[in-house]
Amino acid sequence: MQYPAPIQELVDQLSRLPGVGPKTAQRLAFFLLNLPPGEAERLATAITTARRTIRYCSVCFNFTDVDPCALCRSGQRDDHVILVVEQPKDVVAMEKTREYRGRYHVLHGAISPMDGIGPEDLKVRELLKRLADQAVNEVILATSSSLEGEATALYLSRLLKPTGIQVTRIARGIPMGGDLDYTDEVTLLKALEGRREL
Amino acid sequence: MQYPAPIQELVDQLSRLPGVGPKTAQRLAFFLLNLPPGEAERLATAITTARRTIRYCSVCFNFTDVDPCALCRSGQRDDHVILVVEQPKDVVAMEKTREYRGRYHVLHGAISPMDGIGPEDLKVRELLKRLADQAVNEVILATSSSLEGEATALYLSRLLKPTGIQVTRIARGIPMGGDLDYTDEVTLLKALEGRREL
Repeated sequence: MQYPAPIQELVDQLSRLPGVGPKTAQRLAFFLLNLPPGEAERLATAITTARRTIRYCSVCFNFTDVDPCALCRSGQRDDHVILVVEQPKDVVAMEKTREYRGRYHVLHGAISPMDGIGPEDLKVRELLKRLADQAVNEVILATSSSLEGEATALYLSRLLKPTGIQVTRIARGIPMGGDLDYTDEVTLLKALEGRREL
Repeated sequence: MQYPAPIQELVDQLSRLPGVGPKTAQRLAFFLLNLPPGEAERLATAITTARRTIRYCSVCFNFTDVDPCALCRSGQRDDHVILVVEQPKDVVAMEKTREYRGRYHVLHGAISPMDGIGPEDLKVRELLKRLADQAVNEVILATSSSLEGEATALYLSRLLKPTGIQVTRIARGIPMGGDLDYTDEVTLLKALEGRREL
């Protein structure tokens, strides 16, 4: 016995979500079917509304519902600094520090030869165009500390060298509250290399 | 900085799914936003379609898109045996054995005083009505082996005693391929109690 077609289709669609296997998809489907009337539909509406209204900002390529996005339109931000991240969620993480006051640029990924992702698949060309069009003093490379993130940072630093713009990389080191003996040796090495006089 | 409202709403709605925390909801939201056009909408459509077309079967209370459901309409099943389960997914599990040929009854839960769930919250009254309306020889209690499932089975067995209908409980024991030393003592005890002559 199979499920009725509409349940099977729901399970199938839920199975396509990352990290959701057949068992979880089944559990989620029954959860949605058991919700009070209108509740499951709110999720459906949220999906279609987000897909209809959200696009890339034409300046920084962050997700936005107005173009340019709020961060690019803001008069309170420093135009001379651009912080480069891999993903829109990295912008949110950085904004939480409430310290950074420059602009952003979202690459939408990192260079990964294993996955066939090269610079041409990222918003690199668009970054170069921004740097050509406006006066920028510093580009902060805040790609992740993974192999791909490091490769992307290295690639961009070399690419931007001829422009004469200062290119910096966010520090790698021991995370706050991190114990030395629970920190891997590469991180420790980076922390040692990045030491500063007190 | 917050997300644009449509993204925030999508993250909020996804967060309400069981087992989905804020981080996972964010990951799922970005996954949906990055899908090719039309793909995310398929999930939205699957949700609304399932909610619109799926209801409880008026006989067995399994989920169905036609009433009565396929299992209740089938001429190939034995009307004299009803197997009682907690959830629709249990029907699917039982059908996979391809052995059981009787009918089903879905309680939609189990008795759980801790969660304030009593017999009146389950499809117990509906079961009694079925037993009064048609000739049934055996009711097989296939509620789960949890505290709640056992309590429900005990409650139903006492409730059905006066009807004179044979009430059975599915066997508890060592699962297939299960090692004795990895089996908890309650299961072992049940396996011992349920031993049969070979």
